[in-house]
Amino acid sequence: MNQIIKTVFIENSELKIIDQRLLPVTEKIITLSNKEEVFDAIKTLAVRGAPAIGVAAAYGVWVAAKNQNATSLDLLKKNLLAICDYLSQSRPTAYNLFYALDRQREVIQGVTEVSKMTDALLDSAVKFHEEDIEKSDAMGQHGLTVVPNDARILTHCNAGGLATGGNGTALSVIFAAQNAGKLKSVWVDETRPLLQGARLTAWELTKQNIDHKVISDNMSGFVMSRGEVDMIVVGADRIAANGDFANKIGTYSLGILAQYHGVPFYTAAPLTTFDLSLSGGKEIPIEERKPDEILKFRDCQSAPKTSSVFNPAFDVCPGHLLSGIITEYGVIYPPFKENISKIIGKANAEN
Amino acid sequence: MNQIIKTVFIENSELKIIDQRLLPVTEKIITLSNKEEVFDAIKTLAVRGAPAIGVAAAYGVWVAAKNQNATSLDLLKKNLLAICDYLSQSRPTAYNLFYALDRQREVIQGVTEVSKMTDALLDSAVKFHEEDIEKSDAMGQHGLTVVPNDARILTHCNAGGLATGGNGTALSVIFAAQNAGKLKSVWVDETRPLLQGARLTAWELTKQNIDHKVISDNMSGFVMSRGEVDMIVVGADRIAANGDFANKIGTYSLGILAQYHGVPFYTAAPLTTFDLSLSGGKEIPIEERKPDEILKFRDCQSAPKTSSVFNPAFDVCPGHLLSGIITEYGVIYPPFKENISKIIGKANAEN
Repeated sequence: MNQIIKTVFIENSELKIIDQRLLPVTEKIITLSNKEEVFDAIKTLAVRGAPAIGVAAAYGVWVAAKNQNATSLDLLKKNLLAICDYLSQSRPTAYNLFYALDRQREVIQGVTEVSKMTDALLDSAVKFHEEDIEKSDAMGQHGLTVVPNDARILTHCNAGGLATGGNGTALSVIFAAQNAGKLKSVWVDETRPLLQGARLTAWELTKQNIDHKVISDNMSGFVMSRGEVDMIVVGADRIAANGDFANKIGTYSLGILAQYHGVPFYTAAPLTTFDLSLSGGKEIPIEERKPDEILKFRDCQSAPKTSSVFNPAFDVCPGHLLSGIITEYGVIYPPFKENISKIIGKANAEN
Repeated sequence: MNQIIKTVFIENSELKIIDQRLLPVTEKIITLSNKEEVFDAIKTLAVRGAPAIGVAAAYGVWVAAKNQNATSLDLLKKNLLAICDYLSQSRPTAYNLFYALDRQREVIQGVTEVSKMTDALLDSAVKFHEEDIEKSDAMGQHGLTVVPNDARILTHCNAGGLATGGNGTALSVIFAAQNAGKLKSVWVDETRPLLQGARLTAWELTKQNIDHKVISDNMSGFVMSRGEVDMIVVGADRIAANGDFANKIGTYSLGILAQYHGVPFYTAAPLTTFDLSLSGGKEIPIEERKPDEILKFRDCQSAPKTSSVFNPAFDVCPGHLLSGIITEYGVIYPPFKENISKIIGKANAEN
């Protein structure tokens, strides 16, 4: 499938992103020219979505390398490894960020001449990005096998082209279903507080002329009770060895509602999202964000300024609520502990 | 308990309300001078909350009567009964509206002189309002019996002073718990799309110096999973004979999440909310509201203008998810069909 949206890209040797904070009202491209701008773009969600964060971070190390003046290889490596550490602190939950930076750390370690560093990091980032595009498409095709005919699919947050280097994780499945004539319509959870569903997913579906309805997050259970949801597919920010996974806040509730109504519930994520060092989801760090995201709706004050809030960006959904995990290597079914380990072993053997 | 907020009141022989559309940013009192203004205030949620709608409608019939010039008693009655029909179409779900208008219809029918009509309707509305205040307090005291010590109570939408003539239904229980030293804190679901939780409940709790945290609706499941919710109490817009009840959209999902986590789940509502003509919740009409409520909040666009939406204002929660129904006559426990019938029989016998 052709790439729908240029979320993160290189133009005139500069790193550019579409500023997702302004969508859907304004489509603005911004340039990230140094490590601080990359860090801030990730932290403030100008670029977001676990795989896209990974791609942006990989390019970000290259951007930072271009700004280096170190003439000693050791110093250059030391500086760049410190920059990897710095970028890894931009957001805590998505595992793809750490994975991408680990790949760039290996590149940094392996370079033998100062003059070859930037090109090596760019090549590596481009390759990582290309892999991400391929993985999106592969997830779409594998996911298609679990989509029923005339499917009414519910999704949460944005796991589309804006969340990856390619066409998405969960949305890639939806795009594949549309192309295969299996899609009836999409339910889009608006996804408070930052409204990635309403702002980003609805924008992507509009661009693809895909029939969709936006609902507020508290409506999904009611829609399921009316028998109008055939399948749920969401993304993932980190998946533990047992299938527990962190994703946008609200995913956990969706999993419980899906189980209650007997609606198949899938996450779609590339293997770069799996953190096998964690045996279960309780160990996944959950980012808490600033109160104003809850106290306001964009620029509109929605609660008393003095009210307290709780604002976790993610929650952890236990694997036992999942019907399957859609990856670029196929759909993983329960028992997850065994089958995740198998598929990752297979992938490692192939690479 | 003293009345906290003058939601609907008479001043200088005029019907006034606090305009809830502007809260919490602006506290503005508006006057409703004719039937159209009363209708619009209810329809646009300047006054909302099932019991408060009932009180406003009862006063609204008096406001409309003041504007009548009919000199024949028959014509006056005919006009006023038509106004009751008109006001009954302002919103479809809350039963208290129809109950209040039925009370005024009886008054209209019983009046024997044209000159006595307005006073009779005012007296009846004032009595209905006073009853509502007493019921709020009684619900608070009965509800207190099911509140554990150091309770962390979650509530949805606004079922407080702003939703009733008195101090609330669900919030009356919370205020009683606070006064009795049993309350630790309150979780406030912000309640999209119109944010009655963030705007109104948080505002009321702030005025009472009650410790609270606002969350977006998709966070409640995660908060329950952390063991931080001891009890849920919400209002109700209509309760069927079997305990199924309509309430603000999202209540159904909360009921399922409560059951999954073993959190006691109550609704608090006066007997005027019960519609025994309905054997179950499927027969309750659910209001759908305009798309812009989902596509924006106030003036902030959050989704593409061309996206479709589904915007039900309420959902129906099956009675089997409820731990109990808190009324002014006591807490009704399952089996609801039997016990609702018993308590209403008892209430009718006392009146």
